[in-house]
Amino acid sequence: MDTRTDDFYPTRLERPVPSFERKDPVIHSQGADRSNGPLSESELEQYERNGFLVFNNFLDRETVQRFREDLRNYEDDESILRSEGTITEPGKQEIRSIFGIHELSDRFDRLTRDRRILDMVHQLLGSDAYIHQSRINYKPGFNGKGFNWHSDFETWHAEDGMPRMRAVSFSISLTDNNPFNGPLMLVPGTHKTWFPCVGRTPEDNYQSSLKNQELGVPSQKDLDRMIRENGIESATGGAGSLIIFECNVMHGSNANMSPWPRSNLFFVYNSVENKLEQPYCGNRARPDFLGNRTHTEPLVPIDSPDLRETG
Amino acid sequence: MDTRTDDFYPTRLERPVPSFERKDPVIHSQGADRSNGPLSESELEQYERNGFLVFNNFLDRETVQRFREDLRNYEDDESILRSEGTITEPGKQEIRSIFGIHELSDRFDRLTRDRRILDMVHQLLGSDAYIHQSRINYKPGFNGKGFNWHSDFETWHAEDGMPRMRAVSFSISLTDNNPFNGPLMLVPGTHKTWFPCVGRTPEDNYQSSLKNQELGVPSQKDLDRMIRENGIESATGGAGSLIIFECNVMHGSNANMSPWPRSNLFFVYNSVENKLEQPYCGNRARPDFLGNRTHTEPLVPIDSPDLRETG
Repeated sequence: MDTRTDDFYPTRLERPVPSFERKDPVIHSQGADRSNGPLSESELEQYERNGFLVFNNFLDRETVQRFREDLRNYEDDESILRSEGTITEPGKQEIRSIFGIHELSDRFDRLTRDRRILDMVHQLLGSDAYIHQSRINYKPGFNGKGFNWHSDFETWHAEDGMPRMRAVSFSISLTDNNPFNGPLMLVPGTHKTWFPCVGRTPEDNYQSSLKNQELGVPSQKDLDRMIRENGIESATGGAGSLIIFECNVMHGSNANMSPWPRSNLFFVYNSVENKLEQPYCGNRARPDFLGNRTHTEPLVPIDSPDLRETG
Repeated sequence: MDTRTDDFYPTRLERPVPSFERKDPVIHSQGADRSNGPLSESELEQYERNGFLVFNNFLDRETVQRFREDLRNYEDDESILRSEGTITEPGKQEIRSIFGIHELSDRFDRLTRDRRILDMVHQLLGSDAYIHQSRINYKPGFNGKGFNWHSDFETWHAEDGMPRMRAVSFSISLTDNNPFNGPLMLVPGTHKTWFPCVGRTPEDNYQSSLKNQELGVPSQKDLDRMIRENGIESATGGAGSLIIFECNVMHGSNANMSPWPRSNLFFVYNSVENKLEQPYCGNRARPDFLGNRTHTEPLVPIDSPDLRETG
């Protein structure tokens, strides 16, 4: 591909090029805005240093249970089953993932507009935000495959045209995470560096990359160095825990070799000042359920949404 | 297959049949023989209950280093590279495993005849023993694939004709094992039960099963129950640690997603009263490097072998 002059983060290249320091701040708010929210200065510093934060017991048990019930009920909902963003087991009505779930479920929509959460997002992104991508996942025991180390921003930049590093992911676990059921693993500090990746992006790459990401992963040499320098942290903890992670932090997961299923809510906030452009890899944009281009108005917070009401 | 009348542990069946309690003792020595060795009564009880024992710092650092150097030196040894039991990286002279290593390396041979070890083996098997299988493994970072849950005895019985549960495996780690480089995982207590497996064994099944075992694995329903009841234990620890595990205990490993390689010595003792017969699956026997039928005379112990001498 030809590198665009406005491309701050070249990737999917013909030849390896060295990594470099990111060109965007990690925390975008400044001055009084930085302290105006639920995240303490020490939490902000931790996020700046590691690229992620973990909060146990963020959602109460009853709300967790409601979201799990919703997921099972969707299997009887034809309009959800037929939705382009719904991934089912081959030949079965068993749902694995529903993308764009914030547009299908009131409960999920209310959660993404929770004032506590949006205030944190404002502290991190320094602006209003909208949902770039959302999904609810269910992986039964023994069947969950692992996922290679990658930066989400790398894909969002190359395949969705997200220009700058000004997005943040929220993942809320609906099941317990233990060392054996394939929990999220993160490499602290890697969000500070840009690792350009090698390889041309085929059209509609997402159809295979959602199952097994082979493009847009750093070289083994880079991975070797970054993990030896920074180590790996495993996000284990009970149902209801929240992980907030910066869009460029390197993460992955191993296979689930246990009988314990893994289920989670996942939603990404992007700054309204960082809306999607043409994909930097030069291909056509991915569908809206992966990279939202339609509903990009600022989310309006709601106070203490009752997530226990019918979703 | 037709079930032989002398088959105490039918497996590779056409239809699922229920699991049942093993028909052999876990510890075969009795009376004074049981206490006549390095394993304490509490260690023996732990082995009886869980099916395995872990000893940290069993081999000293210098000896560990010698074995690692040996492995690298074998890559320049044509006779070892050409040996049927040597598995190299496709297209490279990089060794992944050498089977039958106790017959190729003096150092390894001396280790397997160490009096401390053979005295433990005698306590567990209640008789003299010989090496059923041995190997040295090297798995580089990022490349080690995981291995499904299985009982080794299931394969040794079906494909090698090992009649009874009277064998024990020794695994000595040459590298650190941490939660991220695919350590051995065991399901305590599973050695007490026989889980017959479903599926006909193709001829020369070992050529694919050494890479990915699909036959001879319990049903997901059985795995689900046994893990929920007994949990999973991960054998993490430093280089030089020893894991002793009973031939029928369920074990597996996840992929190595770290840069840290895993390397280990692995050798299996079988009782001289439990020599191989015709494979119970009805196929021809596997090669000697997987299931030794040639050198089955009792191992003669040597006192304090100097494993630091040239191997």
